[in-house]
Amino acid sequence: MRRGRKNRQENTRKTSAVKPGMPGGRYRPLTQPDEQQVHRTILDVLENIGMGDPIPIVKEQALERGCFINEHGRLCFPRAFVEDSIANAPRNARLFGRDPKHDIDVGDNRVHNYGGGEAVNMLDVGASSYRPSTLDDLYDTARLVDRMDNIHALARLVVPTEIQDQFACDINSAYVSAAGTLKHTQLTFADASHVQPTLEMLYMIAGGKEKFHERPFCNSGGCPVISPLRYGQDNSEVCVESIKFGAPIWVTVAPQAGATAPAALAGAVVQSVAEALAGMLMVHVVDPGTPVVLGPWPFVSDLRTGSFTGGSGEEALVSAAAVQMINYYGLPSSVGAGMTDSKLPDCQAGYEKALAIALAAQAGCNDVSECSGMLGSLMALSLESMVIDNDLLGAVLRTVRGIEVNEETLSYKVMEQVVHGEGHYLRAQQTLDLMRTEYEYPALADRLAPGEWEAAGSPDIRQQAGERVKSILSSHYPEYIDPAIDAKIRERFPILLNPDNMHPGNSRW
Amino acid sequence: MRRGRKNRQENTRKTSAVKPGMPGGRYRPLTQPDEQQVHRTILDVLENIGMGDPIPIVKEQALERGCFINEHGRLCFPRAFVEDSIANAPRNARLFGRDPKHDIDVGDNRVHNYGGGEAVNMLDVGASSYRPSTLDDLYDTARLVDRMDNIHALARLVVPTEIQDQFACDINSAYVSAAGTLKHTQLTFADASHVQPTLEMLYMIAGGKEKFHERPFCNSGGCPVISPLRYGQDNSEVCVESIKFGAPIWVTVAPQAGATAPAALAGAVVQSVAEALAGMLMVHVVDPGTPVVLGPWPFVSDLRTGSFTGGSGEEALVSAAAVQMINYYGLPSSVGAGMTDSKLPDCQAGYEKALAIALAAQAGCNDVSECSGMLGSLMALSLESMVIDNDLLGAVLRTVRGIEVNEETLSYKVMEQVVHGEGHYLRAQQTLDLMRTEYEYPALADRLAPGEWEAAGSPDIRQQAGERVKSILSSHYPEYIDPAIDAKIRERFPILLNPDNMHPGNSRW
Repeated sequence: MRRGRKNRQENTRKTSAVKPGMPGGRYRPLTQPDEQQVHRTILDVLENIGMGDPIPIVKEQALERGCFINEHGRLCFPRAFVEDSIANAPRNARLFGRDPKHDIDVGDNRVHNYGGGEAVNMLDVGASSYRPSTLDDLYDTARLVDRMDNIHALARLVVPTEIQDQFACDINSAYVSAAGTLKHTQLTFADASHVQPTLEMLYMIAGGKEKFHERPFCNSGGCPVISPLRYGQDNSEVCVESIKFGAPIWVTVAPQAGATAPAALAGAVVQSVAEALAGMLMVHVVDPGTPVVLGPWPFVSDLRTGSFTGGSGEEALVSAAAVQMINYYGLPSSVGAGMTDSKLPDCQAGYEKALAIALAAQAGCNDVSECSGMLGSLMALSLESMVIDNDLLGAVLRTVRGIEVNEETLSYKVMEQVVHGEGHYLRAQQTLDLMRTEYEYPALADRLAPGEWEAAGSPDIRQQAGERVKSILSSHYPEYIDPAIDAKIRERFPILLNPDNMHPGNSRW
Repeated sequence: MRRGRKNRQENTRKTSAVKPGMPGGRYRPLTQPDEQQVHRTILDVLENIGMGDPIPIVKEQALERGCFINEHGRLCFPRAFVEDSIANAPRNARLFGRDPKHDIDVGDNRVHNYGGGEAVNMLDVGASSYRPSTLDDLYDTARLVDRMDNIHALARLVVPTEIQDQFACDINSAYVSAAGTLKHTQLTFADASHVQPTLEMLYMIAGGKEKFHERPFCNSGGCPVISPLRYGQDNSEVCVESIKFGAPIWVTVAPQAGATAPAALAGAVVQSVAEALAGMLMVHVVDPGTPVVLGPWPFVSDLRTGSFTGGSGEEALVSAAAVQMINYYGLPSSVGAGMTDSKLPDCQAGYEKALAIALAAQAGCNDVSECSGMLGSLMALSLESMVIDNDLLGAVLRTVRGIEVNEETLSYKVMEQVVHGEGHYLRAQQTLDLMRTEYEYPALADRLAPGEWEAAGSPDIRQQAGERVKSILSSHYPEYIDPAIDAKIRERFPILLNPDNMHPGNSRW
């Protein structure tokens, strides 16, 4: 049955050929001796070069546990200490959705896609220039992620740039996330003092503190390292304060090869993983029981200009290698993948995203981050790109699932039957049986015959994506915060999202 | 130094970060037990189901060597015979360029990109509909491939559809290839009788029969199997006749899962590899010494419509698995990758191509075919897409190269120096030293800052690609066939390429 464009666009069926958390790990950019050499160098770095500028609580606790300050005044972690911390760290953790169907189990090499971004610009549907992103945009991303099968959780994809006050910015980010999706949400805070009041708002949304902590549907963390190899105060404090969520802490570091990390790719991997471990060690000297999602994100420079290139082959490669190292340690992982340099959802965006996302996923990344909607080396977000990426992620996940090999799937008997029978497999029972389970169908990607495509006006996928974005965002206004609670939240906290924009008829769509 | 758009477009520097023939194999979609189960089933298929309709010379030679006809009248290959043939088959082979710098050594898991296509439509620069492809188009593809660093050889990317006579079509295809590029060219013949006269023309171009056979710069072969599991007469004869080239024979089979192959992906891999081996066995019963490039191309159906989907995740996955099986046998390999379903070089084309090409290359494919310019599930070719794909292929090759891990690249000393010194790596000697050798720079891909990009008119990569195509094709008119020889060739053979179109001023560009 051939389905028309309209049907395809409205199609929101949960596919059964892919699911969150399928194991990766069949791509290994590093050999086993490579892994060990990288690991030994990481231990050397943490033990001898150490980390600058630990915050007082971390320094104090670390020294108590056998770490030391070297002659340069830097906090050093003895290799046995690092190895023990790795061995004792929680290896698996659940990121809860508000609906259990959205729960995510990070750890091992289970692949999920979500997170990241913090872009400060939007590319509007059909536009060819950027504008500053707003709180309404962040709300839209939450509603859209809520409907994307292959984007498994939410993070602050864009910054509400119109909000000057940092506390208002952070708590509003949390508010619109909870208003827009039931998927797990990763939060970001500019200052540790924002954590407690945000938690109090989340308690109200959850129906009480205990309810929230039974299934914490948000987590938090930060980027506690200023590369190379120095702790940053504000984000270190946020990471430590985030332990209060009772959820895994995310720790992301992004040393840039050729600028704040070695230009040699091996060195960039060493430094980024060492810094991510330093983030974990920081959390664990305060509370060894808190799971940490380690995000060594080795970024890459275009050495001709010094600027960050998120879409390069080098970026895809070092990110996959960083995943491999975190899997070598058996710890939960995240890397940035999908950070195209293109400013538009064009062919460059497509191929740069697919290359990085495919390799990160095949390497077995627990959180393939930056994978949905990001453009311009993380400078902008496009909702069109996000729905296109949802299809891309579905295709990548299909490759991650791999090929089941057993007597039935090897199909010897079917082959024999067909060769001596009808001469084709179109009506074979196996073919009919596997239609829904063996094959993943994209929502947008064009598979028409050329004549049909021309008759439809020769659309490119960006046009199709724009229609899908409008269709979802003009209709999907979930009521994920109880109206009575919402009123109380708005009394107590400086919530800036206009309630008029939370209903169909919203003039924005 | 920041370089402008114009410079980037004119940039034809041979990069030093990637090269043809780097080893892949770090992605293994099948486990070792999977490989063995697939292999055993392949042996079962060849021994018990066998192949229908062998041509007389093949049947005769095969029976002489211990094969047999089963009760269904099909030619069956005993497992020991198949295993011996695999063991004794040439494992490596050279595809010669007319310039030795373009020589390609297939075998092991060395990755090259080229070949394939046979599209019957062109998408013109800037166009949004297709038109039938012509001989001029094929000449243009040859000239363009000649200038693309990451497309390592040529094949008939488009069919000259205006030429009704099949012999004229084939010999003209060979002629315009030799006129347009010094890279190795894979030829296609509709009938075995076209091989000898084409060879005679190639002898003239080479400067004599001996000269050609010293370094045969063309090879030939075909698609000798009608799936499922039946030899096709014409292409079988072409394959056998192609032994005369003294070059590796290419054998491609393309059973389509759910139509002419099992819908279960494992079964599709089994059948495609069995059929490719059947192609090799066919050549080897006639001449065991001729190297064969095995092309098991398991195609995939969209089971909702029955039509071929070249861009799906399933396609990327089964192709990579087919590569792995050919590498398991240690034989030269080819698969189709980059066969997007999109009709345009848009975001869908980008991501579908990258996913398939990356996985085939990482699996260690000797000939990543269909990787340059193909659109619409092989229905059309776009020159814009070809130059974009050249950048994509460069990025993929950079990931194939991998990360060199040694004391120097691990960068411990550089890190120590920087941390205790300047605090960044921008001026480190290592950074300067690695600028050209560690990083691959795309010719087209946009890495501008958003403001610069907007100031340049917010181009997408297709616009950039169109300019590059025009710039190359309006100026690159190589004289790869000596004019005196050319005159003689035109006297003897029905060459249809207008000489006026072989010089600057060609009204087509």
